[in-house]
Order: sequence, then C-alpha cells, then structure tokens
Amino acid sequence: MSQSRNPTFADEIKQSFAQQTIMSLIGAELSRVEPGIVEITLPYRTDLAQQHGYLHAGIVTTIADSACGYAAYSLMPPNSEVLSVEFKVNLLRPAKGETFVAVAEVVKAGKTLTVVRADIFAIDTEERRKLVATMLGTMICLTNPSLSV
Amino acid sequence: MSQSRNPTFADEIKQSFAQQTIMSLIGAELSRVEPGIVEITLPYRTDLAQQHGYLHAGIVTTIADSACGYAAYSLMPPNSEVLSVEFKVNLLRPAKGETFVAVAEVVKAGKTLTVVRADIFAIDTEERRKLVATMLGTMICLTNPSLSV
Amino acid sequence: MSQSRNPTFADEIKQSFAQQTIMSLIGAELSRVEPGIVEITLPYRTDLAQQHGYLHAGIVTTIADSACGYAAYSLMPPNSEVLSVEFKVNLLRPAKGETFVAVAEVVKAGKTLTVVRADIFAIDTEERRKLVATMLGTMICLTNPSLSV
Amino acid sequence: MSQSRNPTFADEIKQSFAQQTIMSLIGAELSRVEPGIVEITLPYRTDLAQQHGYLHAGIVTTIADSACGYAAYSLMPPNSEVLSVEFKVNLLRPAKGETFVAVAEVVKAGKTLTVVRADIFAIDTEERRKLVATMLGTMICLTNPSLSV
Repeated sequence: MSQSRNPTFADEIKQSFAQQTIMSLIGAELSRVEPGIVEITLPYRTDLAQQHGYLHAGIVTTIADSACGYAAYSLMPPNSEVLSVEFKVNLLRPAKGETFVAVAEVVKAGKTLTVVRADIFAIDTEERRKLVATMLGTMICLTNPSLSV
Repeated sequence: MSQSRNPTFADEIKQSFAQQTIMSLIGAELSRVEPGIVEITLPYRTDLAQQHGYLHAGIVTTIADSACGYAAYSLMPPNSEVLSVEFKVNLLRPAKGETFVAVAEVVKAGKTLTVVRADIFAIDTEERRKLVATMLGTMICLTNPSLSV
Repeated sequence: MSQSRNPTFADEIKQSFAQQTIMSLIGAELSRVEPGIVEITLPYRTDLAQQHGYLHAGIVTTIADSACGYAAYSLMPPNSEVLSVEFKVNLLRPAKGETFVAVAEVVKAGKTLTVVRADIFAIDTEERRKLVATMLGTMICLTNPSLSV
Repeated sequence: MSQSRNPTFADEIKQSFAQQTIMSLIGAELSRVEPGIVEITLPYRTDLAQQHGYLHAGIVTTIADSACGYAAYSLMPPNSEVLSVEFKVNLLRPAKGETFVAVAEVVKAGKTLTVVRADIFAIDTEERRKLVATMLGTMICLTNPSLSV
C-alpha cells in the first residue's frame, strides 16, 4: 500500500466531500478512504437515470471522478488542492443495479500530476458485483491555491 | 450541415430527453436539436457543485454526454437506439458561470459507431462565453433494441 | 483466464503480426499470446526516439495498440477481423530503458466491442521493470471483412 | 491567431524535430509551424502498415503527438520543455492514402498544461483529403528541465 505524507488526509477528504453539494443531491457517500484508494457508494434512484432507466453515464462519471480526485489527494503533501485535468470513461455494460460503487486507485503519483484508475461496479440485491465502467484520469496538485493550471 | 435519415428525429430526441430523469433533477434543458448538432443548457445551482463551488466535472460530463448521444442519434436511421461507448473530457478552466451549455457536433457518423465532439461553455451574467471543457466520445447505434453491445 | 472460441487464434495472431510491416521496421516481437492476453516486446534503438532520446510516445502506442488488438482478437469468434476504434494513453514516466514490453489484457469482451487495457514497461539492464505508460482502448470485431464500421 | 512569447520558437521546433530520430526513420516532415498550429506530413510507405496495409494507428499517433507537442511548445515561454501527458485518438476510417498530414491546434494554453487537438487526414493521388483520425491531448510545460512531472 502507498504511504500518505499528510497525516490528516482522511479527515480533509471527508470535509471536502461534505462540501461537494452534488454528492448529497444524488445521495452518494464516501465509503472508503485509504492512502491511494478511495471508494464512493451510490444507491440507485429513479431520478438519476437515462432514457432506459439505467444510471446515467454522467452520474457514473460523477462518483468516479470524485473518487479519483480524493485517491490522488490522499497521496499529496499537506496544503495541496486537487483538480481534475482529464478523464476517459469506457462504458462496459448498462449501469443497472441497486447500488453502485466507484473504486479509485492511484496508478502513479507525481509531484504535479497523478494518474488514477477507477472501476465502477453495479451491485444487485444479492450482493453480486458487475463491472459497468472504468475510468482512467489525470489529477493535478496545486500546492498554492492561487496557482493557476 | 448533415442530413438526417429519420424524419421524426427531433421529436424522438425531445421524448427521450424527457425520459432522462437526471435532466430534470439537475435542471437541464434541450436547447437545440438539428441534424448532427445538439445543445443542452444548464443553469448553475449551488447543489451541483464540487468542493470549491464550481459545477462538478461529472455534471459537466452529464450534459455533454447526453448532447453527444442525441447528436449521434439525429443522424441514425429510424428505429435506432443510441448508447455511449466511451468519452474523454478535458477540463480546461474552473466551471464557474451562471449558465452552462454543452454543444455537441458529430465528427463522423458511421453505420455502427459515431464519433462526436462537445464543447462546454460557461456563460456569465453579461452573456460572455468561456470554454470550460471539451469532450471527444464514441456512440454506438443499436438498430435492434435487443442487440447487445 | 478467459477462454477462446477460436482454436487457431494463436497462429492467426502470429500470421497477422508478421504482416504488420511496421513491427519489423521498429524491431518489435510478439512475446506472449494467450486467450485475452498478448505481449509485444521492443528493444530500444536510437532511431525510435523523441528529442530527449527516450522512446517516442507514438512508438509506445504502436506496440500497445497492436497488443490490445490481438488480445481482443484472441477472444473473438473464428473469421473475425479486429480494428482499433479508439485508445487513450497516459504517459507516466520518460520511456527510458533497454527494452520495452506492452502487456495487454482484455477488460471486457463483447459481441461487437472489446475494451482492452495495456501497461507498457521499460526494462533496464538489470531486468528491473518500470511502468512508463498505460493504455485504455476499444477494439471492434468485424465478423464480415466487408462490413464497414 | 495566437501569439507566441518566444521569438525563436519556430527555429527551436525545427531543431527539436530534427532530433526526433523516429521522424527520419518513418520519413515524416515538419510542414507548418505557426503560433499554436503545427503540421507534420508523412508519405505512405509499405513498411509503416498494419495487417491490412493501412498506416498503423501507432504511426498515425506518432505524427499527431509530435504535432500536438510542438503546437503547445510554440505558445510556451522561452526555455520551456514540452512533454506529452496523455492523448486519446479516435480512429475514424482506415488510414489509406498516398500522404498523411497531422494538423495540430492548441485548444487552451495554460501555464502548466496545454490542451491540443489534432486532425489527421489521408490525402489521395488527386489531392482529396479525408479525415482518418482525431486526437485530443494534454501537454505539460516544464520551465526547468530538471523539474519532474
């Protein structure tokens, strides 16, 4: 497992997540925070759907992107800010399930840029997991909040 | 401008959009539907934000992905279904604005796959537009709804 | 491990690889062919470099793309053709090494589309491996060679 | 048109391109260098092909990536170094032609990161251009060559 250089990273991530107002709108929760690994869980709701009733790809992306951002943040030095630079998402199967979980893990942590991968699983009523999408993204560390990208 | 082979594509897109429940949750509207070009508009709300108060990248993606899907659909033959295969989003500037608009345009329409690009602009109170993100994605045409990807 | 539905997939991949003339130009070799997993190895040469003397990102991509295509092909039914739809590559470290190996593995094999991931490692003179890039891509199966994408 | 802050950018790009040994191996030439726009031209050769005889997607990527890197470099301050962070390529049609040209244009130049788009065209013997692929990528500016990413 990776090592964090920021002793309060877990609390900071929880506070930051609580400030992501979109997370409470859609009902997402932070379900795991470890150095280099973050999970966000989202119960299915009928008002989060695309035209066939599946979870909208943008909402799949919403939880995956936040999970990736916080996974990257967990390995950054104290007083950092994290922003998403880019991500790519491959949609593998219809996002049909009772609950969804985005599991993000850092691939490579750098001084400026951190590359993160997230797998998004649909979980059915019998707790079976199916991989529905995968993200590969880049996060940037701003050590000075006023620094522009 | 591209030509549509489906005379009722605009009505079908409006109906499908109305079935995307996530669009009414976030307050997004279909603001332009033409052959090969679709726009979705989203007024900023404080409950759609990430930790700094900007529009969350996943919500930027949500309107861009739907705009891309419908732009692709507009050039597909009658009785098609459209699904997102993958997309990549580059976040260019903080998504800060009064209103956001995702403008999607087909790059190449194929029999099975259609490649679409979307630019997402933030519009301020003085109607100035700033490019905040750009998407490049692939959509698939399922001519038979029961056909699996 | 995945199962192949094509009993002669390994021979077909070797034949196809031999027809990829770019592989002999750059000196790449097929070093592993299993159902769902393909590796391509490339010794460093000074004529494959970018301006700092590292392996050019396009050559990293060349071996990763072929490895992904053949990994996808290995799980396709007999008489298929494989084409690359799209790929994204994250460059993680300077591609500096004696030898490079692209290890591709199928993430999800579908009837039409197959999603594949490849990790590209640099190997130094003491056989130490370092991850220098990662690819996430989509391949399409054309069951009839005359079928257009 | 964009403005360059580096009066000798065009000469520096030509010198750097001459150091990219892969370019002479494949026969690519720098055909246009302007602030924010760079083109690289590549005549087709039978030793640059994939299994069907078309230009290999990795070689399409090779010229597109260098064109994007230099387009980004043209807008960077003096004494910068440019490196590719990531790129995504959508392959739109078989890369079949007499000559190929990658046309890269900066989408957004930032202090650290620059986002660039490239279109890759195949040109036939009657000078007709067909779009065969499109790239969307991110380049990083290292103002101090010893700075790590």
